[in-house]
Amino acid sequence: MKLQSFINGNWIDGTGETVELMSPVTGEKIAEYSSDGYDVKSMYEYARNVGGKNLRELTFHERGRMLKSLAQHLMEKKKEFYPLSFQTGATKIDSWIDIEGGISTIFTYASKSRRELPDEKIWVEGKMEALSKHGTFVGQHVCVPLQGVALHINAYNFPIWGMLEKLGPTLIAGMPAVIKPAPVSSHLAEKMVRVIIESKILPEGSMQLILGEPGDLLDHLGNQDVVTFTGSAETGHKLKSHPNIIKNSVRFNLEADSLNCSILAPDVKPEMDEFKLFVKEVVNEMTAKAGQKCTAIRRAIVPKHLMNEVIDAMKERLAKVKIGDPNDENTRMGSLAGSRYVELVNQKIKLMKESLEVVYEGGEKFDENLAFVNPLLFKCDNPNECSVPHEVEAFGPVSTVMPYENIDEAIKLANMGQGSLVASLFTVDNEIAKQFVLGSGSYHGRIMIMNRDSAKESTGHGSPLPHLTHGGPGRAGGGEEMGGLRGILKYMQRIALQGHPTTLSYVCNQYINGAKQIIDIVHPFKKHFDELKIGETYITHRRTVTETDVVNFAGISGDFFYAHMDDVAAKESMFEKRVAHGYFVLSAAAGLFVDPSPGPVMANYGLEELRFIRPVYIGDTIQAKLTCKQKTAKETKEGMVPQGVVEWYVEVVNQNNEAVAVYSILTLVKRKNSKV
Amino acid sequence: MKLQSFINGNWIDGTGETVELMSPVTGEKIAEYSSDGYDVKSMYEYARNVGGKNLRELTFHERGRMLKSLAQHLMEKKKEFYPLSFQTGATKIDSWIDIEGGISTIFTYASKSRRELPDEKIWVEGKMEALSKHGTFVGQHVCVPLQGVALHINAYNFPIWGMLEKLGPTLIAGMPAVIKPAPVSSHLAEKMVRVIIESKILPEGSMQLILGEPGDLLDHLGNQDVVTFTGSAETGHKLKSHPNIIKNSVRFNLEADSLNCSILAPDVKPEMDEFKLFVKEVVNEMTAKAGQKCTAIRRAIVPKHLMNEVIDAMKERLAKVKIGDPNDENTRMGSLAGSRYVELVNQKIKLMKESLEVVYEGGEKFDENLAFVNPLLFKCDNPNECSVPHEVEAFGPVSTVMPYENIDEAIKLANMGQGSLVASLFTVDNEIAKQFVLGSGSYHGRIMIMNRDSAKESTGHGSPLPHLTHGGPGRAGGGEEMGGLRGILKYMQRIALQGHPTTLSYVCNQYINGAKQIIDIVHPFKKHFDELKIGETYITHRRTVTETDVVNFAGISGDFFYAHMDDVAAKESMFEKRVAHGYFVLSAAAGLFVDPSPGPVMANYGLEELRFIRPVYIGDTIQAKLTCKQKTAKETKEGMVPQGVVEWYVEVVNQNNEAVAVYSILTLVKRKNSKV
Repeated sequence: MKLQSFINGNWIDGTGETVELMSPVTGEKIAEYSSDGYDVKSMYEYARNVGGKNLRELTFHERGRMLKSLAQHLMEKKKEFYPLSFQTGATKIDSWIDIEGGISTIFTYASKSRRELPDEKIWVEGKMEALSKHGTFVGQHVCVPLQGVALHINAYNFPIWGMLEKLGPTLIAGMPAVIKPAPVSSHLAEKMVRVIIESKILPEGSMQLILGEPGDLLDHLGNQDVVTFTGSAETGHKLKSHPNIIKNSVRFNLEADSLNCSILAPDVKPEMDEFKLFVKEVVNEMTAKAGQKCTAIRRAIVPKHLMNEVIDAMKERLAKVKIGDPNDENTRMGSLAGSRYVELVNQKIKLMKESLEVVYEGGEKFDENLAFVNPLLFKCDNPNECSVPHEVEAFGPVSTVMPYENIDEAIKLANMGQGSLVASLFTVDNEIAKQFVLGSGSYHGRIMIMNRDSAKESTGHGSPLPHLTHGGPGRAGGGEEMGGLRGILKYMQRIALQGHPTTLSYVCNQYINGAKQIIDIVHPFKKHFDELKIGETYITHRRTVTETDVVNFAGISGDFFYAHMDDVAAKESMFEKRVAHGYFVLSAAAGLFVDPSPGPVMANYGLEELRFIRPVYIGDTIQAKLTCKQKTAKETKEGMVPQGVVEWYVEVVNQNNEAVAVYSILTLVKRKNSKV
Repeated sequence: MKLQSFINGNWIDGTGETVELMSPVTGEKIAEYSSDGYDVKSMYEYARNVGGKNLRELTFHERGRMLKSLAQHLMEKKKEFYPLSFQTGATKIDSWIDIEGGISTIFTYASKSRRELPDEKIWVEGKMEALSKHGTFVGQHVCVPLQGVALHINAYNFPIWGMLEKLGPTLIAGMPAVIKPAPVSSHLAEKMVRVIIESKILPEGSMQLILGEPGDLLDHLGNQDVVTFTGSAETGHKLKSHPNIIKNSVRFNLEADSLNCSILAPDVKPEMDEFKLFVKEVVNEMTAKAGQKCTAIRRAIVPKHLMNEVIDAMKERLAKVKIGDPNDENTRMGSLAGSRYVELVNQKIKLMKESLEVVYEGGEKFDENLAFVNPLLFKCDNPNECSVPHEVEAFGPVSTVMPYENIDEAIKLANMGQGSLVASLFTVDNEIAKQFVLGSGSYHGRIMIMNRDSAKESTGHGSPLPHLTHGGPGRAGGGEEMGGLRGILKYMQRIALQGHPTTLSYVCNQYINGAKQIIDIVHPFKKHFDELKIGETYITHRRTVTETDVVNFAGISGDFFYAHMDDVAAKESMFEKRVAHGYFVLSAAAGLFVDPSPGPVMANYGLEELRFIRPVYIGDTIQAKLTCKQKTAKETKEGMVPQGVVEWYVEVVNQNNEAVAVYSILTLVKRKNSKV
């Protein structure tokens, strides 16, 4: 198997030295490639000028549909990846997390981008900011894609997931990616890129792959580029402080391994479910992916009086872990990703043994040319004084158990890790959970609180999810990935737009309060989705609110609240006299603006940000103003009437033209070409 | 005037060499201080252990009220700052921007924190993320303050504003600050800190001041600390790549000067208002603060055929700029902040003169010991080929005019600045505005679009506002400050919390869907604000929706939409038969849950996120479930009934317990101690 890089639209061989990939499981050669010899600068130029340009021509929804097709395609092809994954030492479950976890991240971004972003090229972020008294000068944050290239430097442990969790947000943002996989698992990364490229789903230039370690990888990056790095802190720090990265303020998102912890809370007793859940989770996180997880539990922090019981329970579970051929369904733990990692893990274990006591060490003997290792559990009786378990990480099936006296001490120990990707807490006492979040929260990117009620559906301590941020402070690198739309922002520039609301409405393709309104002779409910213009406004006839209305409305709704019905109490209230029901104002406004005949408007299915600003008294005369605020075409499924969502801004005013209520309503409106 | 540092709660003198501050206006000595000799490490420890601890004990609203008091106090004392500001070469207007602009930033943060954040110590950020099928394991992002210290390294040009715009978000976040002012204007910075400390409004340890340039300023920072730097790119880059900053992933927010541009769009003709507005803005930004503004317009990009007209108009305005004593009300431009800056500006001017043509140079002669300079306007006829105007910045009253052929070229020129804090565009053509945002947006942190309609109320090209982000990519440093709540996040850790909704509800003090509900025999509308518990739920009686209801509701609302009233059309619609009005369901739900008697609930003033999930047909039976979601005490003003906002989550279900509508309502509820 000869691997190639995908550069400037072509699969090519490097001209540098040959790198051979050896199976950690069998010791046989599995692939080789010639590294380096590529023109990195031209690769970046191609990404920016071809890929970036192509991607920026699409809207967020178009990019989302593209990712959906891609995820569907990859799911169909998923069986092709498993045999290559076994060759990285990963068991079936490990591989499932890598392969299907990665693809499902793409699915999530495909869906989130279509649900939570507009069908536009500009993302209107947050609310309009009023900056002036008369409203002729306002502010609005928007986000646009960076015009550069995203360099993804991936770790060896999750070659597929690590690639796709970066690729999803990058492509949704509208940026092209250059992917540099870790050498040891690059056969699997290359396969994934090949399947993606062959699918022809992504536009030209959106994705390139570079095998090898070109020395000038960072030299050609500029102010519009991004580096997203996952790997060792040492390498990460070196790259992050590269003069060119600093000089051009190139965004650098760093995710490094950290000494994540799990805490058994002081309220948990050995007979409780949470005790068993804790032991199970720690052992699982030690042995899954042979402990090569940046989120693995390295520190198990337990009440002092339960130390022995916890250790005994862990030992019992650890002894049952079957180590061996990842192809074998019974195997619980495969090998490390390569034989060189055995050496690295053993070095760290040696260092740890100087300060820590071994309480469990698996005794299996393995061929020295392969990458199998035994799980190892340490104990540290003086974790307040000993820095080793908080600083030294053996990136394999290795963990340390340590005692605490009270919750404050547990928090202190958790924080001694100096920043981690994730901490977990096993407790049924929600007050302890709150104390932990307040006392230790700023040291972790994610905190999982586990009890018997959440355990069954939990995705576990070790699993980053596309909906939630992944990354942590300090030792974890200070980066942040995913987290839904938050991850997309890493590849976009936020701009504070200022100007007249009419101008900003046009730029944002969304009505902004104060913008010019367009009045047409045709009722807007007579118009199809495609005919409606942003800013189009309908001003209704008026209606005087009578006592009869208030009384009748109370009768129909059943709402006899004193402010509407009780002269005496209303007089003493903040209203000073009886007022119409707010929901009557809302209902009467609909009566004013609704066009009764069948027409393009199919339904009003939602309402947002309603505020009753002034009371409506008996005798007041109300009028509604309905303005087309935003339009989003819906994807039409088989048998569905082509339609779109139209959001209307509604202002109800009184006889003095003072607003009494403002809100937005959401309607479904037919497309012009719909037959029905 | 002998300046001191404020360290560990005391005003102290340094033990290092004496630094003398000379007036740029008169040449006289205005102050001196002994620099350095402080124990930086202990200063940070004091901030973390005393200031941080004190601040974290407050809620966001308490911190907001603290800032409000502080801003009020500073406004009362504002006159004390002006004489010291004149000594920095700043005119009255320059000083107003620095002093009152700074104080108003504190006011904005005081107000935004109380309006947009909860009255809690934990900020619940964004929506709950469903992570499981049955909803027993969910995610919620929250933010908590970092437990370290924020080191603010400020620039010399806006000693007050630059300090306060960093201090506001830092204190709201709950972090203590150590402030290092720029030496040249440290007499003004010291005065401000002195006034703040003397007010005793901030808790102990929240704020320290360090004069001088201690060499170990960055050596003692850790993973919970933040550096916010404004100043030259060169210094910024050096500090940002400091080994300790990199190693501990210390957050580093860098804001550097950039070559901001302003563009006269191709649609503007000389006789149009926008032409005059453009000329006025460029000249104003050249001369305000003697051009020492990180947001100043360094590049004026104009249509080729208007070059001469623009230059002539600018020359005319520039000639009228009166330079001199900042104390004099007629003075339009004061001096640079110190005589050393004259030398620096002249060096850059010399470099620029090698490639650019001078079209205007003021001819006044000034005392060489003072810091007055003349404005200077350059012209660059070949801006596509010449990098000087896009790369060299004279940080004084210096700007370059350059021509473009079409909007694409104007965008290209704007982007040649390689990242800026702000760009402005003068146009009446909104399509050009959109093109510019799409083509050049990713190169700027802020874009102001100006026309005759927005001009009158505009705050101008040069003014960063607390509501909007300030910072820009590339040359501008890649940082981001302010932007409302966004700026607060820079001093907090975002955590992805996972667990059972009941646990997360408790931690967040906010009902999260799926959490345990508490049922009480007492109707919740009978309870005062203080008595209500988060999660407390009222399940109403039921009501069968009849044809009479639908008909009567149409009569009262005036809403005769066919889906409710027209059997024939309803049959052909998506509903397949007549449905009740959505607003009837809403009104009837209120009828089900409202308690009519006068009681603690004063009003329902708003409604959020309403979705009609299923149609309600004639004959269906509905029931409402009302759950206390969130409580926020209101600040009680004189004569006001003590009250709070209670947000209720409402679910309306049908006879099959299927949700037909979900939403939140906002009510005002009296406090228990209120007399009324």
